[in-house]
Amino acid sequence: MSREAGRRSGRRPGTSGAREQILAAARSAFADNGYDGTTIRRVARAAGVDPALVHHYFGNKRQLFVDAMDLPANPAEIIEGLVATGDPEDLGERMIRFMLNVWDQEEDRAPLVAIVRTAMSDDQAATMVREFATTEILGRIVKAARGDNQDLRMTLLASQVFGLLIMRYIIKLEPLASAHPETVALAMGPTFQRYLTGPISQASSIGASRTERSAPVERSSTNISSDS
Amino acid sequence: MSREAGRRSGRRPGTSGAREQILAAARSAFADNGYDGTTIRRVARAAGVDPALVHHYFGNKRQLFVDAMDLPANPAEIIEGLVATGDPEDLGERMIRFMLNVWDQEEDRAPLVAIVRTAMSDDQAATMVREFATTEILGRIVKAARGDNQDLRMTLLASQVFGLLIMRYIIKLEPLASAHPETVALAMGPTFQRYLTGPISQASSIGASRTERSAPVERSSTNISSDS
Repeated sequence: MSREAGRRSGRRPGTSGAREQILAAARSAFADNGYDGTTIRRVARAAGVDPALVHHYFGNKRQLFVDAMDLPANPAEIIEGLVATGDPEDLGERMIRFMLNVWDQEEDRAPLVAIVRTAMSDDQAATMVREFATTEILGRIVKAARGDNQDLRMTLLASQVFGLLIMRYIIKLEPLASAHPETVALAMGPTFQRYLTGPISQASSIGASRTERSAPVERSSTNISSDS
Repeated sequence: MSREAGRRSGRRPGTSGAREQILAAARSAFADNGYDGTTIRRVARAAGVDPALVHHYFGNKRQLFVDAMDLPANPAEIIEGLVATGDPEDLGERMIRFMLNVWDQEEDRAPLVAIVRTAMSDDQAATMVREFATTEILGRIVKAARGDNQDLRMTLLASQVFGLLIMRYIIKLEPLASAHPETVALAMGPTFQRYLTGPISQASSIGASRTERSAPVERSSTNISSDS
């Protein structure tokens, strides 16, 4: 599962010609056709190589994207680590700790910030980032959390993930920008956790008494109506 | 309190010369010096008019910013309406309903989207947006909610507000992009409310048993330690 980019692992230093051609073709293909619309076959054709060579260097489309965008982490490894270990009820806090651990490293952060900024001003880049983030990262985490109404949960989660990243690393709003990771994990963990597994489509217990919508709900409830 | 821009209210149609000069000077001043660093006096000097004329047309700096940026709503009126009416425990949901009511109008949304996009790619614009949003909108709402640790609460709130706006109106991630406002209010209301008045700096009741940090807390608790 560990097929890190040559830059990082130092593997295959002598094969840069075809490898670099494939990466350049992949960057164009992802930008033009989005993540979901790009195939290994199409990238291979654009690079003038056999698809088998792309598979040989990068394994799969996900890893090709990770290497083409110079991302610091392989999402398959992220999700494996987050979901497989620890209490499912802590998944929200663990997501935050992992994210901040990556983004707080300045050399890892630079390409991520560049991608997010581009996505904010360019519709094609926005599509690419949206599709990769939802298909390969957030969608998988939400699926693993096994809540109901997973499409809505995924977008709620995405809104808080991107909001956190933008405020901490791009807008740099204090005190969030320099808060200790554990402060962020405690403050935002319940939000991540509720979006993953909590009640999201009914009146909250706060203020529920003023409405007819429902009785107060417990935090751990997964009793969700599908109204979207 | 209602000093709406001429564009909307139709007031003072014959005074556009000096008024437009002031607005142009204000746009430059806010962009160059941020919101907090801009004064009525400085804008008047740049526009070559007396400060009294700026006060006459715009009342105060907040309204000058609203008109210069072509914003659809006056934040003083927003906050007055949100805080003064209704249950404080519903403030989160009411914030969301109000925000979506403004942003869902396409003609009101355009200038807001333009400002947010610019702030993502331009550090000076980011400073301006950050200062206005925190000084005039979120900071006032958090203050009115009277929770502890208000600076951190304000930035947590900002992260979810911007995350929601970006996902719904810029990245347009479905199903959040076209979800009914009430679905969003129910799904995100508890997050807004917890950031405003709930516990933010201790272990959540979810998973608290695994730690020594604290006993489970009630949703309505405002028992917050100041660790930031």
